[in-house]
Amino acid sequence: MRSYISIEVRYAETDQMGVVHHSVYPVWFETARTRFSQEMGVPYQEMERMGLMLPVRELSVKYVAPAVYGGCVTVETRAVRLTPSRIVFRYRVLSGEKLLAEGETLHAWVGRDFRPINLRKAFPTVYEAAFKAVEAEA
Amino acid sequence: MRSYISIEVRYAETDQMGVVHHSVYPVWFETARTRFSQEMGVPYQEMERMGLMLPVRELSVKYVAPAVYGGCVTVETRAVRLTPSRIVFRYRVLSGEKLLAEGETLHAWVGRDFRPINLRKAFPTVYEAAFKAVEAEA
Amino acid sequence: MRSYISIEVRYAETDQMGVVHHSVYPVWFETARTRFSQEMGVPYQEMERMGLMLPVRELSVKYVAPAVYGGCVTVETRAVRLTPSRIVFRYRVLSGEKLLAEGETLHAWVGRDFRPINLRKAFPTVYEAAFKAVEAEA
Amino acid sequence: MRSYISIEVRYAETDQMGVVHHSVYPVWFETARTRFSQEMGVPYQEMERMGLMLPVRELSVKYVAPAVYGGCVTVETRAVRLTPSRIVFRYRVLSGEKLLAEGETLHAWVGRDFRPINLRKAFPTVYEAAFKAVEAEA
Repeated sequence: MRSYISIEVRYAETDQMGVVHHSVYPVWFETARTRFSQEMGVPYQEMERMGLMLPVRELSVKYVAPAVYGGCVTVETRAVRLTPSRIVFRYRVLSGEKLLAEGETLHAWVGRDFRPINLRKAFPTVYEAAFKAVEAEA
Repeated sequence: MRSYISIEVRYAETDQMGVVHHSVYPVWFETARTRFSQEMGVPYQEMERMGLMLPVRELSVKYVAPAVYGGCVTVETRAVRLTPSRIVFRYRVLSGEKLLAEGETLHAWVGRDFRPINLRKAFPTVYEAAFKAVEAEA
Repeated sequence: MRSYISIEVRYAETDQMGVVHHSVYPVWFETARTRFSQEMGVPYQEMERMGLMLPVRELSVKYVAPAVYGGCVTVETRAVRLTPSRIVFRYRVLSGEKLLAEGETLHAWVGRDFRPINLRKAFPTVYEAAFKAVEAEA
Repeated sequence: MRSYISIEVRYAETDQMGVVHHSVYPVWFETARTRFSQEMGVPYQEMERMGLMLPVRELSVKYVAPAVYGGCVTVETRAVRLTPSRIVFRYRVLSGEKLLAEGETLHAWVGRDFRPINLRKAFPTVYEAAFKAVEAEA
């Protein structure tokens, strides 16, 4: 499964170099994950309501070309790896056909107390939905 | 003229109170102004390309009810006053019919050097477009 | 009581106008309030631990001169009005002697459920500390 | 050379998980780089004044333990690799002795037009200062 979200660049997201600040891309990735979770059938806010959280454990970004104010970017999101304790997402930020950045986030499935959980046992329907989303990508 | 923009609440915009942080609303207002300028016929990025900038001189917000992650808000924007040196925008942030916040920003028309300009003389087509947008509201 | 905090301007806080974005000032005010609450004797994190929260109900800012990257600003904070249900803070952002901005925030004393509380009755020691801070200003 | 900066956690930096949002760490890294550049003898704002910019090309972060509101973190910064076209910084975010996160950023030396430059040839004094900072680390 690939999810796509269009994001209008905000003026506040630029810096004095005249382009979007690099710390904004992780926020765009997160917005893209929200969309992904909706399309996967389990919106992230529902996960939190169930007592399931998905904090970021690792983040990486490669910046290829700057994003600028005055238009939209598209973020393409895929889930590329799933275990009962972790999930990995991969992102591409595009302006039209042009690649602006690529990134990856690794998340842990944890409970409200931030302790790791076994997703397959604790929330089998979420695991199933995530599993299908990863499989559909392969 | 009234402009409307739908904004999906970002997780990063929440704070540990569990609701959207108050400093996010001015950013939403700005995004709404970008939309307003597009509908007015002079996108803000074009103004900057012409050498015209519109920095915020005064900002006020009343917070009525919290915005939360897991849905969208709508920002309604109107231009309520225009002079050759200034413009005032008014905003309402809504979740469905429910009012979450109201705000106002006052801006100065300035050149690239941040010096005030007389918009009517320096950029008559922009003044004209803004004038119509205000009038259409009255 | 007047509290002072020195804040180093962050590159991420600038925008493509080359100056600090206006939405940053409410964040600086908040940082200044944190310092104020420490000097008042009741750090804000302790209030939250007690079940007391202080959300912003009204915000206003006047921007006088731009703040720029490459130095520090000082925020001066005073509490100017206190009732059992509300408190008002006033801020001045300075670069050396030069005034960059002024602002005001009005807050409600609420419990964890966001319901208004009577601070004098519910948390008399906090009320007392805040009362002294306001009085010391008058 | 190792540079250290103490940063007070801002309430606005938290999210509804009750901890600092992961997108804040790159901003802290940048603040730490500003300090590093000062201690290296060439503050970043001077570089920009000379026409030299240092955009981020790659970013990675490992999040070990959450940072929380109500105290300070320390960011330790080292420059670990320098070529005429690039520089790599490494960061550790600490709360007391406790490691909260580690990260790395790779930057390109570019001119005002974002074109790569040969730092050793174009700005030999900056190259020299950066070289010493890296060497002092080895």
